[in-house]
Order: sequence, then C-alpha cells, then structure tokens
Amino acid sequence: MTRIEMLAVGKELLIGRTLNTNANWVGARLAKLGSMLKEVTTVDDDLGEISAAFKGALERSPEFLVVVGGLGPTPDDMTLKGLAQGIGVRLVLSEAALELILEHYSARGMEGVELTPARRKIAMLPAGAEPLPNDVGTAPGVRLVLGPTVVYSLPGVPAEMRSIFTKSAEPEIRRVLGKLYRSYEKMKVEGVPESSLAPVISEELKRHPGAYIKSHPRGAREGVSSIELDVAVVGPDRESAAREGDQIAEAMARKVENLGGVVKSGRRPHQAGE
Amino acid sequence: MTRIEMLAVGKELLIGRTLNTNANWVGARLAKLGSMLKEVTTVDDDLGEISAAFKGALERSPEFLVVVGGLGPTPDDMTLKGLAQGIGVRLVLSEAALELILEHYSARGMEGVELTPARRKIAMLPAGAEPLPNDVGTAPGVRLVLGPTVVYSLPGVPAEMRSIFTKSAEPEIRRVLGKLYRSYEKMKVEGVPESSLAPVISEELKRHPGAYIKSHPRGAREGVSSIELDVAVVGPDRESAAREGDQIAEAMARKVENLGGVVKSGRRPHQAGE
Repeated sequence: MTRIEMLAVGKELLIGRTLNTNANWVGARLAKLGSMLKEVTTVDDDLGEISAAFKGALERSPEFLVVVGGLGPTPDDMTLKGLAQGIGVRLVLSEAALELILEHYSARGMEGVELTPARRKIAMLPAGAEPLPNDVGTAPGVRLVLGPTVVYSLPGVPAEMRSIFTKSAEPEIRRVLGKLYRSYEKMKVEGVPESSLAPVISEELKRHPGAYIKSHPRGAREGVSSIELDVAVVGPDRESAAREGDQIAEAMARKVENLGGVVKSGRRPHQAGE
Repeated sequence: MTRIEMLAVGKELLIGRTLNTNANWVGARLAKLGSMLKEVTTVDDDLGEISAAFKGALERSPEFLVVVGGLGPTPDDMTLKGLAQGIGVRLVLSEAALELILEHYSARGMEGVELTPARRKIAMLPAGAEPLPNDVGTAPGVRLVLGPTVVYSLPGVPAEMRSIFTKSAEPEIRRVLGKLYRSYEKMKVEGVPESSLAPVISEELKRHPGAYIKSHPRGAREGVSSIELDVAVVGPDRESAAREGDQIAEAMARKVENLGGVVKSGRRPHQAGE
C-alpha cells in the first residue's frame, strides 16, 4: 500500500485552540481514492521540533508527505526553515516563488507592492524545491522530492491548503495510486454489546482479510446499547468492491439478528473514488 | 518545560471519519494549567505502527505520554498489545482490571456476566501496568511508568477519556507542573496585512521572550484584511501573568493603530489555571 503521511505544524493545534480539520479533510480525500493517511504528526512552531519530526517521517519512507502550516510571513511561521534544517540544505530565494507572490498582489490591485523582508521570507524555499501556485492566498505551496518521498508543504489556512492540494498534489497522488475503488457502508446495530459483536467481526475479517470492519460504541439508550458499524472495501473495480461490501454487510446483519440485535439504519449508497 | 505528548490510535482519525477532538480537549486542558501538548502522533490500528510510534515517543523522553484509543474488546483494538510489543513485555491478566470490569457490569445490573474472551481481553495489560477506574464505560484506563515517562493509556470514547484523564492523570500532571498561571488575550486586528504585522510581532517577542503572540489570518472583507491575534503569557502568579499580557496587548494595539489599522474586539477576561 502506498504510504502517505501528514506533518501538521502549529501551536494552535496543540493548545486546543484549533481542531485539526486539515488532517480530516486530507484523510477523507485520500479515502475516496482508496487510500488513507497512515500517520499524522502534529508539532509546535519550533525549529527543532519541526526538523526532528520531518526527519522522523522521511525515515519511514512514505511515498507522499503532506506538510501543513507555518508558511506565512510571521516569525513563528518557520516550517520551511525546519524542513531545510532537517535535510541539511539552505533556504534560497526562489525567483519562481517571488513571481507567484507578485502576481498575487497585482491580481488584487496592489501592483508594485513593497517587497518587505516579511514578504520576501515566503519566497525563501529549501534548495531544490519548487513553488506551487496558491489561488487563494499569498504564500505559495512547495514541492520537494527527497529520495522515495514527494513532499508537499502547504499553508495551514484551510481554503488555501485545499486549493493547492486539489490542484497540485492530488493529480500526482492519483497517478501513483492508480485506479482503485472503495465501497463504504455504515450500519447501526442496537441491542448487542460491543463485547458480543467483537467475535463476529473477527470471523468476518478472517473471511475478508482486506476489508475494514470497525465498531464505534455510541453508548446506550434506555438500556439498549447502540453501535455504529463501518464496513469498507477497496477493490480494482467499482463492482467487485461493492459486491464484497454487500456480502460483508449482509453477513453482519444476519449475525447481529442471531444475537438478538437489530440493524437499524440502512446502508449508504456506495462512495467510490475515480 | 515539562514535555507532554499524545499518541492517538484509530483508523477513523486517518480516513476523515472522526475529528481528533480528544487531542483538542487534552491540549486545552493542559493550556489552562500553563502547559501544552508538545507533539501529537496519530497512527492506524496496526500493531507495527502502534509499537513504532510508542517507541519513537518514548525516545523523546516526555514526562507524560497520553495514549488514546484502541482499548475496547474488538480485534482492531490493539493498543495495549502494541505498547507491550514496543517495550518488549508481555500482556498479563490483571486481577485488578478484571475486578473493575466485573464491578462495572454489576453496577449495571449485569451481575455474573459471562467472562467471554472479548471481555477478558480488556483486562490484559502490559506487565507492570496498573488499571485506572473508568466511571463511564467498561475498559479501564492503564497507567505505566517507563523510565522518566508516565504513560496513561485511555479509551477513545471522549466521555470515557475525559473522565479518566480528569480523575487519574490530571492530579499527577498538576503536581509535576507545580503552580503556573496563564493569561490569554484574543484581539481582532483589521486593516493591516499579516506581512506588515509580522515585524511588529517580532519586536514584541524580543521584548517578551517567553510570551506567545500569534496571528491567524481570517481573510479579507470588502478589501480590509482581518487577523485574529492571540497573546498568551505564563507566569508564577496570576498578577504577573496578567500584567505582562496587558503590556503586550497594549503595545500591540498602539502599533497596529500606528500602521493605520484598528483593534476591533476587546480582550477576554483572563483565564488562569490553578
């Protein structure tokens, strides 16, 4: 399986100020393509922390590493410096990045804006990196190839991250993933405690070793336990993924009923990546 | 500074199904005590991934490592096995854990419930660990001391995680942190681009090296840029933290006005841990 990781940078994620919705969004996006994030590391705005976490992620040789946050002009935006430090290269002024920044300002009627040190800072990329256009904000994204790993460094502002990810990262990731299809069914099981459902899931996983079957306990209402059950299958074509997903869902429903439980809500229509 | 890390386990966090609200909650809770999470690692329900991430976290010698998720009875709940594998110990049946589990059932009128393998599984702890009572759900939390690090392994269900964290982990963390107070002010700056605010923040951080001053761009409305500015200070007593926070906020407001901007919303009343 293609390994894709995220490195999220920002104190706001560590002090409970901001939920890491970026990790969620990228994870969901990759799941639609039949893949997922395999690991997410979140670190503080701190050079040592960023460079150590970056080195750590590269040692796991992911095919893709999506770094998010810390590309802005303020002093605590130090992601690119941290990445450069982690791989022992310098930050160099990228003419291509500078051009993208000046285009950004002139498109907003700020032609000839002063190139202050703060604005110049966001054009300083690790040696060997290329800038990625940002249609939403000022700071360009950054693409960097390091051995087996393609690194994308994207701004933390969600609209900017999503725009650059969709336009620049996703097409390349899709090419590597090839064509995979995913079926996803969500069931609601009532009246069976999770500890009784566990052996049933084990059985079904033995029959379908590549499948994802996971129970999420949702507490009990009036003494009746409620569990959400996810069933996901990835396959080489839409039909085989859907067929295997259906088989599992039907077998699970039958077994839940044998345990005296009820499968409450129906299944979702299939979601599939393309 | 006391280093506190989190290791979150669960595929649902990596495929965009579930937001990591647990990391957010623990981060906010620690921030109130004048500390923070220094790193959060999120990994898949996979033995190799869990044990590698656990070893990696221990190598950074945090004082506390809060592991969340994967304590339930289902086959993909494998956190304790992963931790045990990471440190080279066995899982052993904990009589104390078994007692907590049986108490849980009998308190719910299920006296003499059958000890199925799935129920027995949640009483298997890494050798040397002690169980922590769970007032909300079935699976006990786990406490484990490894060299300089106290490890808490807590269930992923938010209500259970919060309950065990508050009752068992927080008192111990508080003792180590000692008494620290935090002032926090949130300002809204309009009419100054972030790249112009950056040097002002740098100046103020030079004057107050321990402070946290961070800008969060919130886009522009009708051509006027809007930025949220956080100012946080930690001090040995409530008054000195508040005083330093006030000084910074006032200096920032004055400088924003000199740049032609406006500080829109007032400041929040101080939050302080105790």
